[in-house]
Amino acid sequence: MEIRVLRRLEEKNKANADEIRTLLGRHGVSLLNIMGSPGCGKTTLLEHLLPKLGERFRCAVLEGDLFTTRDSERIAALGTTVIQLETQGSCHLDAALVLRGLRELPLSDLRLVMVENVGNLVCPASFDLGETARLAVLSVTEGHDKPSKYPLLFTRADAVVISKTDLLEHTDFDTAAAERDIRKYNANVPVFTFNHRAGPSHQFTDWLLERV
Amino acid sequence: MEIRVLRRLEEKNKANADEIRTLLGRHGVSLLNIMGSPGCGKTTLLEHLLPKLGERFRCAVLEGDLFTTRDSERIAALGTTVIQLETQGSCHLDAALVLRGLRELPLSDLRLVMVENVGNLVCPASFDLGETARLAVLSVTEGHDKPSKYPLLFTRADAVVISKTDLLEHTDFDTAAAERDIRKYNANVPVFTFNHRAGPSHQFTDWLLERV
Repeated sequence: MEIRVLRRLEEKNKANADEIRTLLGRHGVSLLNIMGSPGCGKTTLLEHLLPKLGERFRCAVLEGDLFTTRDSERIAALGTTVIQLETQGSCHLDAALVLRGLRELPLSDLRLVMVENVGNLVCPASFDLGETARLAVLSVTEGHDKPSKYPLLFTRADAVVISKTDLLEHTDFDTAAAERDIRKYNANVPVFTFNHRAGPSHQFTDWLLERV
Repeated sequence: MEIRVLRRLEEKNKANADEIRTLLGRHGVSLLNIMGSPGCGKTTLLEHLLPKLGERFRCAVLEGDLFTTRDSERIAALGTTVIQLETQGSCHLDAALVLRGLRELPLSDLRLVMVENVGNLVCPASFDLGETARLAVLSVTEGHDKPSKYPLLFTRADAVVISKTDLLEHTDFDTAAAERDIRKYNANVPVFTFNHRAGPSHQFTDWLLERV
């Protein structure tokens, strides 16, 4: 009986994700699903990206959090349209909540919506949000062993950003080992770097622009 | 129907947790459940604690991970009895798996078993493992906003360790703000510090010894 219920939940999520894909297609909007541990730098990445992207086209952000609107306040301070998706304690975003968020946005004026998922290296990776691309963020302070210990997110990512490289010298993070492990699960995935002082590498911004 | 299944799972977990409490009581063993984000320093905390505690009594470790035996290898290198609890992709430990692990240990020779939960700031907090005490670990590199964004773990913790304080000067972590937020959810919880070079504060070791 447990298995039947899980399947029903997955089917329901798939139906909502399909509806998101249809909605995005109709408006020509791309959706980036940003995932990673708590405090790995997802909001800081958005803070670096939004002013740059805003020169080219209009973006919006869906901010996933269990509680509080702290991250939304940081995004709103940049003048970007942001909607808080408060999961009320749940460990991931699902397609139903993202669909509700998208329906609140002026989609016909937008080119890109970035979803900041709940900080969690495990659960969000299992949920199809109807996204155009999935981004995994891994900070050097978490350690290079994390892709092997939490492989699902890296297996299904369209790109990986190694963040907080400005702290690299204070850690024993081995970038080559991390990349080698990531490529065991996802042979051709691009791996980019993100120095929190200087911003993400321009190769990452180029990769993102190609998805819009 | 979904709610009924969840309740059945919770009841089943509670029954296993009760069995753990009986088993621990019979052998006079304490169980510490260590929780926190991926890479927050749970294994490193064990590496600092085990040689010190080993001078006083025999300990063992149950290592929770989705995949790999990397952390178990680090603990075994210290000469400590360790059993890997591989969740095969699941985001938390449950009492059934911990009970199986405990049954593999020479409980009558032990005083303390430390459980390193899966790296996750959300899901492990919901599962009663029959533990004597629950420890929440928060690293300064994750940011002081995490207790408010992920309150459940902090609400239910018997103690909090703020880890990686050796990196404090390279972050904007505000220790007073973190403590203030933690105490909003858990007024009297003790909050300790852990410098990864020097080890956890002796106040933390004293707190732990009082639980054995």
